Amino acid sequence: MRALLFDGILRVEHNAPMPEPLADQALLKIRRAGICNTDLEIVRGYANYTGILGHEFVAEVAAGPEALVGRRVVGEINVSDGTCDMCRRGIPSQCRQRRAVGIHGYPGAFAEYLALPVRNLHLVPDNVSDDQAVFVEPLAAALNILEMLAISPRERVLVLGVGKLGFLAAQVLRLSGADVVGVVRRDTQARLLAQWGISARYIEELPKQQAQVVVDCTGLAEGFADALTLVEPRGTIVLKSTYQGLPQVDLSRVAVNEIRVIGSRCGPFPAALRLLAGGLVDVETLIERRYGLDDALQAIEYAGQKGVLKVLLEI
Amino acid sequence: MRALLFDGILRVEHNAPMPEPLADQALLKIRRAGICNTDLEIVRGYANYTGILGHEFVAEVAAGPEALVGRRVVGEINVSDGTCDMCRRGIPSQCRQRRAVGIHGYPGAFAEYLALPVRNLHLVPDNVSDDQAVFVEPLAAALNILEMLAISPRERVLVLGVGKLGFLAAQVLRLSGADVVGVVRRDTQARLLAQWGISARYIEELPKQQAQVVVDCTGLAEGFADALTLVEPRGTIVLKSTYQGLPQVDLSRVAVNEIRVIGSRCGPFPAALRLLAGGLVDVETLIERRYGLDDALQAIEYAGQKGVLKVLLEI
Repeated sequence: MRALLFDGILRVEHNAPMPEPLADQALLKIRRAGICNTDLEIVRGYANYTGILGHEFVAEVAAGPEALVGRRVVGEINVSDGTCDMCRRGIPSQCRQRRAVGIHGYPGAFAEYLALPVRNLHLVPDNVSDDQAVFVEPLAAALNILEMLAISPRERVLVLGVGKLGFLAAQVLRLSGADVVGVVRRDTQARLLAQWGISARYIEELPKQQAQVVVDCTGLAEGFADALTLVEPRGTIVLKSTYQGLPQVDLSRVAVNEIRVIGSRCGPFPAALRLLAGGLVDVETLIERRYGLDDALQAIEYAGQKGVLKVLLEI
Repeated sequence: MRALLFDGILRVEHNAPMPEPLADQALLKIRRAGICNTDLEIVRGYANYTGILGHEFVAEVAAGPEALVGRRVVGEINVSDGTCDMCRRGIPSQCRQRRAVGIHGYPGAFAEYLALPVRNLHLVPDNVSDDQAVFVEPLAAALNILEMLAISPRERVLVLGVGKLGFLAAQVLRLSGADVVGVVRRDTQARLLAQWGISARYIEELPKQQAQVVVDCTGLAEGFADALTLVEPRGTIVLKSTYQGLPQVDLSRVAVNEIRVIGSRCGPFPAALRLLAGGLVDVETLIERRYGLDDALQAIEYAGQKGVLKVLLEI
């Protein structure tokens, strides 16, 4: 089968071996996939991953339980052991032995086929399109903010780093009724936020230490430093991205201002599907370009340019 | 009056001006005071503070409201404006315009007299000695952990950096019924913890990513790094100290393991007084030496030696 492989060099492989599903797995024929910043970082060396890239996708079940064959599904990316303490506590996304599709120890979805445990799969409702379904994984990650932290409708919530993930986070947070503000660097970002009725401010326009919650989607040391200047005493900073290297952090300010810093990763697929099915979140506006799998190298290159939003691969 | 002054040079001043209490203040005659790590850090340049040092004390009210004169009191260190949003929310310790006794913009307690707002004062019960009362401020800071975070009696809680503050934190946390373990570097620390029925482990003996809560009292970048290796996924790290400079921090691990980092500062004096009056916390064992105010330079020097616990000044 064809697949986008990274083993130090990025290339489209035409004779990648077909996955062989285990007893608890289904064989998925990938329909469409999305390029995430994590994919771009892996190509730059993050996580030391080698193998087939990709973890945002919608697929059709090609083989597996009868009730699923032929149905459209999305798949959770954490392949858990089902037996460790974290799995038993109902948090398989933090499984002690987990592998992660296209990120850690498990082949990815930028390929014609992928085998995945049946328990990772969620049926896609008919009124959710393939384009929308590709966003279920990052939308679930945005929803994880609400899993980690109660957002009050009285609060001001700033979203730092409004790109692929930040726009989803802003939309999800807006549904809480809170006063959500995207912190922008370009007018194009502000215009996009305005489409969803979300306000935008340049960082220079914002008062210091006044926001109850700051969601940092920048993945940059400077982003976290900005978050620390914007969050109020006893406020919360949510980390929605990984960071390159070991950023220097003003831990003293965290202690003295009694800030809460909360890491946030994968989230609930069923909730993401409900929001898409209910038309409560717009993801299609974020799609910038589409490429075939054979043109995946160009797709990755384009997706890596500054300010580019979602690039899809049609498999 | 006599006072221990720091203005780049540390010295006992014999003709420091007497404080002049404002209308809402009482004049306190200091009886006894304790040397805290923050005092030692200020002498090394932290917080750019100059003035009279000291913020842990017990005093007698020399002038002020009639009901208080002649009574023993302890005093909260945050001198708040009473009008800002944080004060109105009942969090004067995070007052936007706050000054802090002996730390920031307000004279300290290593002196014969101190003027302090009456609302900062708490009467000391008769069965709490002067020695014990000196510990109310750091004990309240330890209790702030429980203000910032619900500790479940099912949890394992590690205390990193068992020194002056860490021993108080361990004792306070033990009262929750949780499995509290002091992470030690020396057998002397383990023996002290054993006196209170608290277990001790060397860090090499501890499994990685297994503790629900890690309280970092080290104030060191390496301490925070240790905390990150010891805390379980979705666990909590409490920052109980300030850190020198800007430590390098593995923020990606915070994000991926969904860790909560919670800064913690000053705490509730009434609760600290209740625990001391009830005999639920032992502070006297932590007292290593006593000095008169005239010998404060030697006291500061001795307190700065590695592993030294509480040094008192008898004023």
